[in-house]
Amino acid sequence: MIKHRPFLIVVSAPSGSGKTTIVRMVLQKMNDLFYSVSATTRKKRAGEVDGKDYIFVSHETFAKWIDEGKVVEWAEIYGEYYGTPKEPIDRALKEGRDVILDLDIHGKRALEKLYGKDVVSVFLLPPSIEELRRRLISRGAESPEKLKLRLALSKEEMKWGYEYDYIVLNDIREVATDNVISIIKAERMRRERIVNLKEIVGDED
Amino acid sequence: MIKHRPFLIVVSAPSGSGKTTIVRMVLQKMNDLFYSVSATTRKKRAGEVDGKDYIFVSHETFAKWIDEGKVVEWAEIYGEYYGTPKEPIDRALKEGRDVILDLDIHGKRALEKLYGKDVVSVFLLPPSIEELRRRLISRGAESPEKLKLRLALSKEEMKWGYEYDYIVLNDIREVATDNVISIIKAERMRRERIVNLKEIVGDED
Repeated sequence: MIKHRPFLIVVSAPSGSGKTTIVRMVLQKMNDLFYSVSATTRKKRAGEVDGKDYIFVSHETFAKWIDEGKVVEWAEIYGEYYGTPKEPIDRALKEGRDVILDLDIHGKRALEKLYGKDVVSVFLLPPSIEELRRRLISRGAESPEKLKLRLALSKEEMKWGYEYDYIVLNDIREVATDNVISIIKAERMRRERIVNLKEIVGDED
Repeated sequence: MIKHRPFLIVVSAPSGSGKTTIVRMVLQKMNDLFYSVSATTRKKRAGEVDGKDYIFVSHETFAKWIDEGKVVEWAEIYGEYYGTPKEPIDRALKEGRDVILDLDIHGKRALEKLYGKDVVSVFLLPPSIEELRRRLISRGAESPEKLKLRLALSKEEMKWGYEYDYIVLNDIREVATDNVISIIKAERMRRERIVNLKEIVGDED
């Protein structure tokens, strides 16, 4: 039996690329993965489940967590805090589970600073700017001005791609999901991650 | 559409690991792969097809090919030559096809010297020495002495594993085949291999 050192898969994408859907679909097919749930200080919305959609905490708790180094990365958006709690990740890794995270490039960079080569980064690409426009429009009524701004932002975010290990096109979502799964499976077989190679193949000469 | 620079997948394994079967099964599922057929000076056996099982050539031709650098790697076994013709590989790469090769560690090293990072190396592992013994026995009647020697050789060859990018357990062959396919798919999405990233995501800042 080959054993690998568990690793972190961080999935990023420009706004509106359907990242959340893909991560959810990957999790449905790979139930041994651990999903890192973000913490936030913002109010819970209707239908959201604490501990599943977000870990909802007070500003006091969040501030304490930052002080004590209990969040891997965090950001403030319109006065509310969002971040990645460290303890659940470390517990999952200790249990031998690979961890999947849905973060932006700042989160990805913070993660790499902390976990080095144990981070595998995947960048999801919308098939085209045109398709991205369609997806943003279908999400709900945004004013033309807002849409323009959103698209300009997404265009900027496309360039994050240069920093990632893998580029996955999110054209057909079932294909994109399978492609992310292939990456995770392949990474599990990388020689550097295998912890019991010596046991299996004998001592190195 | 994401385009990758085509690469070479070299599959190696200790003798008796069922490598040929796995490579054949991968090829059946991925018909865009190009299989590099070895050349040999040995006589064609009943049922073998020239250009499919081997490219059968004369000693003169083989010697000429070596002289002219037309074989990537070659070895002499009991007076017969075996090697990998370079021209079909380069043609396939030029056509944008990934190439799969079934070589031993010497072949793998020669390939890497020539193609550098465009080589992805996969090492197939038998599930155990016990299982390897069973497989060797089931292949045909070998004397106990020969079997012992074969096993000792396979045990030595297991250590090749330390040099490979990926380690794939060949326990259930359908699973091993799918795992090799995952590796090939993942490698196609590696950012460093993507040739039209700039075109897709824009100029790097």
